Amino acid sequence: RARFLSAAAGNAVSVNADRLNRTIHETCRWGEAHRFGPDPTETGMCRLALTDSDAEARRWFVDEMKAQGCKVSVDQMGNIFAVRKGRKEGAPTAMGSHLDTQPSGGRYDGILGIISGVEAVRTLNEHNIETEYPVAVVNWTNEEGARFPQSVVSSSVYAGSTPLADAWALADIADASKTMKSELERIGFLGSVPCSFDANPIAAHFELHIEQGPILEKAKAKVGVVTGGQGYRWYDVQVSGRAAHSGSTPFYSRSDALLCAARIIAKSNEIAKEHRALATTGILTLEPGSTNVIPSSVRFTLDVRHPDIKPDTLDAVERDLIDATFEIALKESELGCDVNWKRTSVANAVQFPPAGVECVKEAGVAVVGEKKVLEIVSGAGHDSCAVSYRCPTSMVFVPSKDGLSHNPREYTSPEDCAIGAQVLLNAVLAYDRR
Amino acid sequence: RARFLSAAAGNAVSVNADRLNRTIHETCRWGEAHRFGPDPTETGMCRLALTDSDAEARRWFVDEMKAQGCKVSVDQMGNIFAVRKGRKEGAPTAMGSHLDTQPSGGRYDGILGIISGVEAVRTLNEHNIETEYPVAVVNWTNEEGARFPQSVVSSSVYAGSTPLADAWALADIADASKTMKSELERIGFLGSVPCSFDANPIAAHFELHIEQGPILEKAKAKVGVVTGGQGYRWYDVQVSGRAAHSGSTPFYSRSDALLCAARIIAKSNEIAKEHRALATTGILTLEPGSTNVIPSSVRFTLDVRHPDIKPDTLDAVERDLIDATFEIALKESELGCDVNWKRTSVANAVQFPPAGVECVKEAGVAVVGEKKVLEIVSGAGHDSCAVSYRCPTSMVFVPSKDGLSHNPREYTSPEDCAIGAQVLLNAVLAYDRR
Ligand SMILES: NC(=O)NCCC(=O)O
Ligand SMILES: NC(=O)NCCC(=O)O
Repeated sequence: RARFLSAAAGNAVSVNADRLNRTIHETCRWGEAHRFGPDPTETGMCRLALTDSDAEARRWFVDEMKAQGCKVSVDQMGNIFAVRKGRKEGAPTAMGSHLDTQPSGGRYDGILGIISGVEAVRTLNEHNIETEYPVAVVNWTNEEGARFPQSVVSSSVYAGSTPLADAWALADIADASKTMKSELERIGFLGSVPCSFDANPIAAHFELHIEQGPILEKAKAKVGVVTGGQGYRWYDVQVSGRAAHSGSTPFYSRSDALLCAARIIAKSNEIAKEHRALATTGILTLEPGSTNVIPSSVRFTLDVRHPDIKPDTLDAVERDLIDATFEIALKESELGCDVNWKRTSVANAVQFPPAGVECVKEAGVAVVGEKKVLEIVSGAGHDSCAVSYRCPTSMVFVPSKDGLSHNPREYTSPEDCAIGAQVLLNAVLAYDRR
Repeated sequence: RARFLSAAAGNAVSVNADRLNRTIHETCRWGEAHRFGPDPTETGMCRLALTDSDAEARRWFVDEMKAQGCKVSVDQMGNIFAVRKGRKEGAPTAMGSHLDTQPSGGRYDGILGIISGVEAVRTLNEHNIETEYPVAVVNWTNEEGARFPQSVVSSSVYAGSTPLADAWALADIADASKTMKSELERIGFLGSVPCSFDANPIAAHFELHIEQGPILEKAKAKVGVVTGGQGYRWYDVQVSGRAAHSGSTPFYSRSDALLCAARIIAKSNEIAKEHRALATTGILTLEPGSTNVIPSSVRFTLDVRHPDIKPDTLDAVERDLIDATFEIALKESELGCDVNWKRTSVANAVQFPPAGVECVKEAGVAVVGEKKVLEIVSGAGHDSCAVSYRCPTSMVFVPSKDGLSHNPREYTSPEDCAIGAQVLLNAVLAYDRR
């Protein structure tokens, strides 16, 4: 560890790797779930946005940032801004990520980004470093889109690409009576600060995140300099057939909603491959759910991705998917089924502005050397993508063991977490100096 | 109505069509669900076996049968035997069916059979008819297999083909902590009479049931004389993959449990068609269930049917299904998935013994005339199939509107219900006289 930290330092300061990793795992007690081994850290996480465990992690974050001398404010989407003063007034250079997790997620996705921001502030305080401008740590609400089904929703409201009212109205996928607004209220995080870049600007946005894919590990690189993120669209597909008896209903008089859905899902994979895109169905529910009853209705999600900066490929995939879906529904499933196809969210592919990317690259090279730094496009969406339209933005990626994420066994070594935190801090200081 | 009743009567007695239909709908108040229109009868049913609503219907049945002078006993599976004395002692001629329904079932499946038995006893009492031997109305527990996943389970225990301990141990598909035994105990229907044909025999078993398929309606027939039932097997398929991020996980490093399951379900339909069999998936659940997470595990049911009296075709379908499943799981789903394939229940195809069939045929012809009577093989399983190994058995089918069943809109006209009840009573009297 000593080696990279001294290399990292240059004329900057070193993060405390032990303190960083200790804090990651200590704060994982809120939402810990899915134990897979005896070690205290051998669990995954279930800390869905705006649940009680998210609220506990948020309260810890607010208290810790105040203890570190930051001014903490909460906006209308529950985004938390913890600002450390600089020599001059002005918009802070932000380190943002998210404290919410997937229902069976890991201990690093989002969490590493926030705790590294906390560690950066602790390090600056410890060494009495005064930055030119303020720096901030920002916790964005419901990044995952796992509970309220739009990812990076609160950074999108902040950036002005999603209307506040739409975001507030998003309903819990498991309980439609709960909306983002009602849950923000319930846990005491419906703030009064406008959720708006214009009203509450940041100067730049840097984010440390685990890669969540196999590229860095395969390339034996230690730091990914993220130059942009692929585009993705989410769909909700509702197939309506007719409940009937599995034994006395001949094929010719069936409208089997599940058979129809199964064919669409299998076909979506073929279509995605033709376009070198990705397609995934993560949620599927059906009714009525009895062994000897042909399902009357099936609802499933489709997540489609492609890195092209122009939306053409995703447009083409969407067209092919819709065509195939209606063909399957009309012709292939015996009597036919009705399909309701809804695009529920769109995240366009982004290219990060060079000003941010250069700072991360410079910092990465300083910490691990040029050979261990790789430019990379993010397969996942991030709050950084949402805000990159408004200010210089870039991200630091660190390797994910086996490329695994959104899985309780997601893992990034303590050393790699510390490398990432150091690159994050250095990038922020580099930007601040410019 | 008058016409068929007088035709039916011969030297027998006529059921009261109004009282029959009134009682059907009055007793539907226990478990009424899924309203689809303003008329009081425009609802379906959700009266899952051994729930509180089933218990209420059962208590009504016990009280009513006692009020009609029957001796009521409950066996170890909660089967209820209501016996009306005859001139001689001996095993009763039974009219059996079931009071439980599907989670979104209709008002006739099972219910019509029981209420027609009640109406038959009321009619005999009203006319002071003394039969040679006792007659009984029997309510069999959990015929549907919708809550405890084995259909006709309690008549199978009675017939000796399913061990009592296995049936008692069956767990609620929605809550594994509840078993048939614990729920029988909870609702006060764990009886002490041995659940055994040998210890508690019946002389014959007749059952009125809606057809649940399109055959009678298409043929413009009024009465189906059921000569047997097709065989069926239920399977539980568990597909295990690996949860991972939908955006950052390339296809080559996925084990997508849902994609694999979708392909198996689509393939099961092809295989069934090749064999002129039926295959249906009625239940599918997955984990973890998030839009941007590749599912790690999927569990689904398969219900496979074929009328061949020999098990060869179902054996062949099963073999093809298993082969295809493992091929899909190993090769087609990128990194491959693990599959756990379990056969959970088997109901062999049956041919009803001629003695019972003849009585139904004779009764049917007397009530509606030869042209309106059709011999038919049941696509669904019935308690009659389970007990047909032990005693003369047959069934009366009446038409189902649009062939629809296991659906809240399941419908059989009041006239057809009454025709069925008359044929049932006449068949019982015919058997009693033999
Ligand atoms: N990083 C991450 O997992 N974000 C969730 C949004 C997405 O689905 O890409
Ligand atoms: N009649 C009826 O719906 N029985 C349920 C058993 C089956 O699945 O066939």
